[in-house]
Amino acid sequence: MYKNFKNIEKVVFGRGSFSAMAEIIAEKRNENDGFFLFVVDNYFFGKELADRLPALPIDVVRFIDPDPHEPTTEQIDKLRDEIVATKGLPAGVIGIGGGTIMDIAKAISLMFTNEGSSTLYQGLNLIKKPGIYHLGVPTISGTGAEVSMTAVLTGPEKKLGLKCEWTVFNQVILDSELIATVPVDKWFYTGMDTYIHCIESQLGILNNAYSLAYAQQALSLCREVYLGEKAGRNAENDDKLMVASMMGGLSLTYSEVGICHALSYGLSKILGEKHCYANCLAFQHLEDFYGVGVVEFKEMLKKHNVQLPQNLSASWTDEQITAMAHVAYNLTHMWYHAIGTNWKEKVTIVSIKELYKRL
Amino acid sequence: MYKNFKNIEKVVFGRGSFSAMAEIIAEKRNENDGFFLFVVDNYFFGKELADRLPALPIDVVRFIDPDPHEPTTEQIDKLRDEIVATKGLPAGVIGIGGGTIMDIAKAISLMFTNEGSSTLYQGLNLIKKPGIYHLGVPTISGTGAEVSMTAVLTGPEKKLGLKCEWTVFNQVILDSELIATVPVDKWFYTGMDTYIHCIESQLGILNNAYSLAYAQQALSLCREVYLGEKAGRNAENDDKLMVASMMGGLSLTYSEVGICHALSYGLSKILGEKHCYANCLAFQHLEDFYGVGVVEFKEMLKKHNVQLPQNLSASWTDEQITAMAHVAYNLTHMWYHAIGTNWKEKVTIVSIKELYKRL
Repeated sequence: MYKNFKNIEKVVFGRGSFSAMAEIIAEKRNENDGFFLFVVDNYFFGKELADRLPALPIDVVRFIDPDPHEPTTEQIDKLRDEIVATKGLPAGVIGIGGGTIMDIAKAISLMFTNEGSSTLYQGLNLIKKPGIYHLGVPTISGTGAEVSMTAVLTGPEKKLGLKCEWTVFNQVILDSELIATVPVDKWFYTGMDTYIHCIESQLGILNNAYSLAYAQQALSLCREVYLGEKAGRNAENDDKLMVASMMGGLSLTYSEVGICHALSYGLSKILGEKHCYANCLAFQHLEDFYGVGVVEFKEMLKKHNVQLPQNLSASWTDEQITAMAHVAYNLTHMWYHAIGTNWKEKVTIVSIKELYKRL
Repeated sequence: MYKNFKNIEKVVFGRGSFSAMAEIIAEKRNENDGFFLFVVDNYFFGKELADRLPALPIDVVRFIDPDPHEPTTEQIDKLRDEIVATKGLPAGVIGIGGGTIMDIAKAISLMFTNEGSSTLYQGLNLIKKPGIYHLGVPTISGTGAEVSMTAVLTGPEKKLGLKCEWTVFNQVILDSELIATVPVDKWFYTGMDTYIHCIESQLGILNNAYSLAYAQQALSLCREVYLGEKAGRNAENDDKLMVASMMGGLSLTYSEVGICHALSYGLSKILGEKHCYANCLAFQHLEDFYGVGVVEFKEMLKKHNVQLPQNLSASWTDEQITAMAHVAYNLTHMWYHAIGTNWKEKVTIVSIKELYKRL
């Protein structure tokens, strides 16, 4: 009846704090087989940050391309099996990247100690044992994956998170210097993920004073970063965006995302669209649900010269739209939050298909 | 160089969530000698909440009067020694009350596992071992003691906290129904503690985007509760005040209190004034440091018909004022934050005495 939510155990916040990692992980090196697995966005391959990793020769460093797809159950299982077969059980896993890398780090931490395929654990509290120590360093801000208790995975049957208290990072390092080099499109779309899920968090039946306070402050920071007098890319805004991402994630602890995220999951699962971009594709057409939130979102698009494609649905088959509508419909907690207890009277596969046809 | 701060491990937020405690502590009952120590504000003695305590016959329930003084090292040592001698080592300690009770619960949790007097551990990271499991249930909102890593104690020599990562609660239950019956004076003064330390947090050299975001949102909630259209005592405002208290406390994770708190500590240590009230006594006279914050504070006083005494210093001896100035001066981190790196050039015992004479 009352959620008892698990916080990240320890948090460092500050420009340049990436350098604190070596000391933080040193005391964990006695665990298990004594090596760390670094999972790093391959954007950093050959870049300065790669030279600053506190990796020892015993450690495994994997640069992973987050772009072709969001993390899949197959990808997690394969990486886990390979590491266990060749090196044993890591002392810990360190994720350095955006939401995809955060989710990979959280998911593989759990899958090192829970047997079988990760497809067995997609859902709430299905994980049986705590994972290994895991540390997250976000290098793109907005998804809130650094604080959430979910590691979203796309499986053969569903896109659904491994969600339990052990999913939450043991340690997070929030160093806003690391987001200074995010490509401008990712800076925009990922930041909009925070904006959109805070709007959804506020407008629904599950929110409370806790989720509202976090959503309000995250939205206020987003407004400063994307619409304020000093809007745009600068150090101060990087700081603010990193805090907004964290607070947006914390808002969802006691609330839920809504219609936009439900539609977005369908776009990701069936058409392979990236999460944050898919949110933007859908959100622009939801003014009847999210009113001024959508109006303000369009101001942000305009201010940053972002053109979202229109009439996408014209090229989709009815089969694809139906498949997306089924994915969206099955995210029942999102509809419940957004529409209310009687949502099934108001929302049908047909009505969801109509929403997709707006795109 | 970079603070690595420890979060409360688990948090429940929600009206009525006090009832979740029985289930939460059930799984801890195998620890140590299997009994819980309940430390409860004696305001609740004979009241409905006392009947709702999930205490078993084996447990120890102590109703404590928080009013004669704030927690002392002697009080903690004595209670610890008595419990250990008669019952052994508790499975955990549960604090139910305002900031004083929160501090007692945090401090005694540490003193059950660290030998000798608590006076040995007043300061930063002097504690040698983790304490026993401790759970906090605030019934007055404002001090932020429910989230802080400090258990402030008044000893024979100093008023200073036991401050380390193990001070932080393992579990907090935030049930805003519990603050509905707070006497109106405590409701005001304790809420003002959040307001004042957020103003101090913002205006100083240590703050960053993290502490600013938390302070901004806590201040915004305080404004709604004490000055907004629906200002005053109601369920919605109790929710907001409970969140404001938490966020105000979290703001201080990366920032510091300032001049008002330094003066307040002197008033508490030398004259025995309660912390939140002492803050209010001092803050009204600090407009040259905290500008619009003090102006707005005076609006809140007026709106709620709170008359703070004036010309107090006329009845103090020079010896008392000097003693208070020494207490305040020694809180060097507060002056450093509020005045800057060169604070010693600007702040002297004499200048602090002049501040006290404003009261």
